Amino acid sequence: MRLPTIKFLQEPTSEAWVEQAIENLDIVLLDCSHCERKAAGVALNMMCRYPSDTQLVRELTAIAKEELEHFEQVNRILEERGIPLAPLAPPPYGAKLKAQVRREEPGRKLDLLLVAASIEARSHERLGLLASRLEDNAENQTGDTRNRELAAFYRGLMASEARHYGIYWVLATTNFDRETVDRRLQELATVESQILATLHPQPRVHS
Amino acid sequence: MRLPTIKFLQEPTSEAWVEQAIENLDIVLLDCSHCERKAAGVALNMMCRYPSDTQLVRELTAIAKEELEHFEQVNRILEERGIPLAPLAPPPYGAKLKAQVRREEPGRKLDLLLVAASIEARSHERLGLLASRLEDNAENQTGDTRNRELAAFYRGLMASEARHYGIYWVLATTNFDRETVDRRLQELATVESQILATLHPQPRVHS
Repeated sequence: MRLPTIKFLQEPTSEAWVEQAIENLDIVLLDCSHCERKAAGVALNMMCRYPSDTQLVRELTAIAKEELEHFEQVNRILEERGIPLAPLAPPPYGAKLKAQVRREEPGRKLDLLLVAASIEARSHERLGLLASRLEDNAENQTGDTRNRELAAFYRGLMASEARHYGIYWVLATTNFDRETVDRRLQELATVESQILATLHPQPRVHS
Repeated sequence: MRLPTIKFLQEPTSEAWVEQAIENLDIVLLDCSHCERKAAGVALNMMCRYPSDTQLVRELTAIAKEELEHFEQVNRILEERGIPLAPLAPPPYGAKLKAQVRREEPGRKLDLLLVAASIEARSHERLGLLASRLEDNAENQTGDTRNRELAAFYRGLMASEARHYGIYWVLATTNFDRETVDRRLQELATVESQILATLHPQPRVHS
């Protein structure tokens, strides 16, 4: 499966986000737990909305299971670090993207797939940036061994997220012609980058 | 873990349901697929509502994953039997039980746990009845080999459902005192049996 690369992300994440995340590793890790649970919910909701689409149901069941496994893994790391599970106010990112989803079919289906793909692509990029910075910090200084482990964990998640946005992409191009997908993706990617152009003051995966 | 047995079900399932299900094996199997996906959703929604309850989050993540695995298994059997995935109008059972859930905490949490437990308990009972009848039919007649496999599959699901209602029960008694749980369960079990007292004309797991 050929994965689309940069086209999901019109603008790269700013250095400001990386610094905010590095200074708030515990909160970002807790938010990561919420993101994994929400990602399972996104997949499950889509399966529920399109129960006759065998390919979609099969692929998204696998994604939902995997997100729940990641959720368990993040929660174990939170426990090891003595960070209690707690609610966190979400950043505006998710709601603003959701507002872009058209109400009418077939546009809704395409938008749901592309929004899910965009979120996965952005998570992929950001967790990769965070992993790299954690690795650099560990190299250059004495470094907290636990942060080296955290970097490895984020690298693992990052790889899964690449696979996931690839799957959402394949589902989009299976259900819609390539030109329609490309045009809509362009529009959504523009909005997605605009939403993140101003750093949200509360540190989050998508702040 | 000591599992509560009969107290979840005030009245046993009627012979009429078993006959309806046996005459509509394909539809009941398709409904079973929907039930597994919905059960994963129930667990996920509760995790989302009580994100600080570490025990609940841990137990329900495991349940959600398992329900998704069962969903995959049912879908494989549907495929083998040439039954396409399709939406199905749900019976009134789920909505009527949901209407019993109090809006205010802490009552809501207790009710959500006990309603989920009751649904699992009823599924456990009914799939067990269906498995037994399929086994008997296979014994007494030449029998369709595939129905013997179906019986074995339902037996497996039935065992998981017993575990699941046990877990919901443990979560209820961990969060609430035993007397409160018993009293509320009594009320909900009465309603649950009343809902099923009249057979729903469309064959379903909870018709």
